[in-house]
Amino acid sequence: MARRIGVHALVRRTHEERVLRALREGGAMSRGEIAELVGLSRSTLSEVTGRLLHRGAIVVVDTDAGRREGSGRPAERLALDPGSGQYLGVDFGHRRVHVVVADASHEILLSGSAPYEDDSSWPARITQAFALIGTLSTEARVHLGALQGIGLGVPGPYPAPTTTPTTASPGTETVGPAFAERFDAPTIVDNNTRLAALAEAISGDGVVEDLLYLRLGDGVGGGLVVGGRLVTGASGLAGEFGHVTVQPDGRPCRCGKLGCLETVASIPAVLAACRANGVPLDNLTDLGTAAHHPAVDQVLRDAAAAVGRVMGRAALALNPARIVIGGEITQLAPVLVNRIAAAVLREVLPGDDASPSVQAAELADEAGAIGALAALFHNSPLLVGYPEADVASLDDPAGPRKGHRPCPATTTVRTSADGQY
Amino acid sequence: MARRIGVHALVRRTHEERVLRALREGGAMSRGEIAELVGLSRSTLSEVTGRLLHRGAIVVVDTDAGRREGSGRPAERLALDPGSGQYLGVDFGHRRVHVVVADASHEILLSGSAPYEDDSSWPARITQAFALIGTLSTEARVHLGALQGIGLGVPGPYPAPTTTPTTASPGTETVGPAFAERFDAPTIVDNNTRLAALAEAISGDGVVEDLLYLRLGDGVGGGLVVGGRLVTGASGLAGEFGHVTVQPDGRPCRCGKLGCLETVASIPAVLAACRANGVPLDNLTDLGTAAHHPAVDQVLRDAAAAVGRVMGRAALALNPARIVIGGEITQLAPVLVNRIAAAVLREVLPGDDASPSVQAAELADEAGAIGALAALFHNSPLLVGYPEADVASLDDPAGPRKGHRPCPATTTVRTSADGQY
Repeated sequence: MARRIGVHALVRRTHEERVLRALREGGAMSRGEIAELVGLSRSTLSEVTGRLLHRGAIVVVDTDAGRREGSGRPAERLALDPGSGQYLGVDFGHRRVHVVVADASHEILLSGSAPYEDDSSWPARITQAFALIGTLSTEARVHLGALQGIGLGVPGPYPAPTTTPTTASPGTETVGPAFAERFDAPTIVDNNTRLAALAEAISGDGVVEDLLYLRLGDGVGGGLVVGGRLVTGASGLAGEFGHVTVQPDGRPCRCGKLGCLETVASIPAVLAACRANGVPLDNLTDLGTAAHHPAVDQVLRDAAAAVGRVMGRAALALNPARIVIGGEITQLAPVLVNRIAAAVLREVLPGDDASPSVQAAELADEAGAIGALAALFHNSPLLVGYPEADVASLDDPAGPRKGHRPCPATTTVRTSADGQY
Repeated sequence: MARRIGVHALVRRTHEERVLRALREGGAMSRGEIAELVGLSRSTLSEVTGRLLHRGAIVVVDTDAGRREGSGRPAERLALDPGSGQYLGVDFGHRRVHVVVADASHEILLSGSAPYEDDSSWPARITQAFALIGTLSTEARVHLGALQGIGLGVPGPYPAPTTTPTTASPGTETVGPAFAERFDAPTIVDNNTRLAALAEAISGDGVVEDLLYLRLGDGVGGGLVVGGRLVTGASGLAGEFGHVTVQPDGRPCRCGKLGCLETVASIPAVLAACRANGVPLDNLTDLGTAAHHPAVDQVLRDAAAAVGRVMGRAALALNPARIVIGGEITQLAPVLVNRIAAAVLREVLPGDDASPSVQAAELADEAGAIGALAALFHNSPLLVGYPEADVASLDDPAGPRKGHRPCPATTTVRTSADGQY
């Protein structure tokens, strides 16, 4: 075996991606054909295909005997495993779980959601998700026997900070292991808003290299794509736009500070402000119908101004091409996004070069689950440096990817630990 | 030649880096030895060494005839070009130019600076820089005959926005071509504060993957490293912390807005505030000696509070491991950094996990020039996706890197255009 220097995870992954892409685009072929196509030596290619076979990502389909005209021993032909490809994406919101299942070609086979109470325990939410997955797969007659990986989005910072009172929902650390055990597949877990940002960045035409994403919901969360990569931060806490102070003497926030953006622009905060101004609204749908009421209008103006200030100042630091505002409220009160755009424009440097476009999210409820799938596929350039679900099994030749794997690996998301190269 | 798919700039660069590293660590060797060492096919390796020979980064030194015992034609041996390695880093500040020259092993051969007037024209500044380089190289008896590349830092956004009145110094677009013509070498140009941020991130122990950098000088500029990469932004304008609004009804800023951080925390702003409070200070040195005066102390407190608010809120978005404050003022009034740290702590989420360290810059005046060299060497993982000085000559087989190149390439810095991968 060749002595190797400087062969780090990035190179390995790049090689694997090139081999998989060659098979996806060119169909079954021999190692020799693949080697020529992707410009790798036979020995390097042999290592790469060995790992991919080991993980079950590709299979030996036949020999090239039928196509050969010359002499010599027929070579094995390799192909993507047609039966290998089911991937589960799950997004646990504050009040519902959304599930998406895709195959190896990234076609979505199943999609659906189920509600739960805001104060449901994590065991109850997980049970609800399992039931939903069962119902959906039965209805669609999809047998989930070969799950290759599970991407999971959870609310709050993930992994939950350990040292302090935090905004994380207690119990999110149990989600990964519960799914890994139930489906015997590796899992990847991350903040669901960050995953939604990933989904927004890769949806539509082309990948956006520099994007800020904010979701206005029961809380206010965010995610960032910077320089073509999804940002997690030094300790997994990037994207907390919701806790930027906008009113230094404002209302207490659940994070322990005063006057965070979340205390002004989350759905509960907006509804409370409407009620305080004499317009009794119970839920978001009511808000949509009452948006023309002057007091409600003013509340929405205040919320938009605060959001615009926070995102505009972040845009000075990061110079994004696009700012995306998500959450159902942007559909019910579309004027909100226009007002946010105007407020952003007042913050950034004058001139077109410095002005990001500001727009409502393209994806609705399913953004988090689709982002979880995208993180799992790890097939976006945005995810260079992002951890992979099957890193553990790759590095352990004794533990094959399929069949009798002793213990499913749960990979948590911390770029700082992973960014070694 | 093999058909190629998915072979993008990153893979090409990675291959080149591996070959160069092999030669640096292993000395001269044949193509066959290199191919085995780095795990590339002979044909791919041949392409890579062809490009490196073309650029003059490596040379043919001899054949391996003397070492061979078997039969067959002796193979050429390749090595790093010992004479190829001089690289020039230049930082044009508002009031002085700083120059650093390093060899191929990244040893610094020359370093020095020269002052000019704040209102000097760009031709005058460039002439001053040429004179400084001449003096330094004569003194040190270093012949600058083989400059492989030139990294240039300039104040203000670069490339300067075209559509608007901006904060860019007019004339910075002439700097790259002037150096390229004078030294017949490819250049790379970027904002000098961004380059200083790069230098800070790679100085000291290990690379910092997530870092915010702010320089308090005649202006207030910044730079960011996010997820292990230097950030330029969608249109080259990332890092403009100095233009975040901190006093919505504050003083006019040169950018056209009111009450930007720069109107409170730049050196001229601090000196003006001291004078307005009855303490007549002419320059930064005076400030150092008067820092104990109550009025001066209050001005510094106000500046620190504003800086801390801006950087703390950016930290909520980006979750950096470290915030670095540069500029001579941090040496003259060290208490400033402690106060900024305290203000940052009030903004971020409670708890150690979310709290970046806040510290004064490690590098002084030379940070920008060293960062320009680092960008030129392109040897840091922080620069994945960052443009390279010799991209143009690489892609043009008709234009050899050394000798009679018809027109030196000036590469401007725009990741959005380059960030294909």
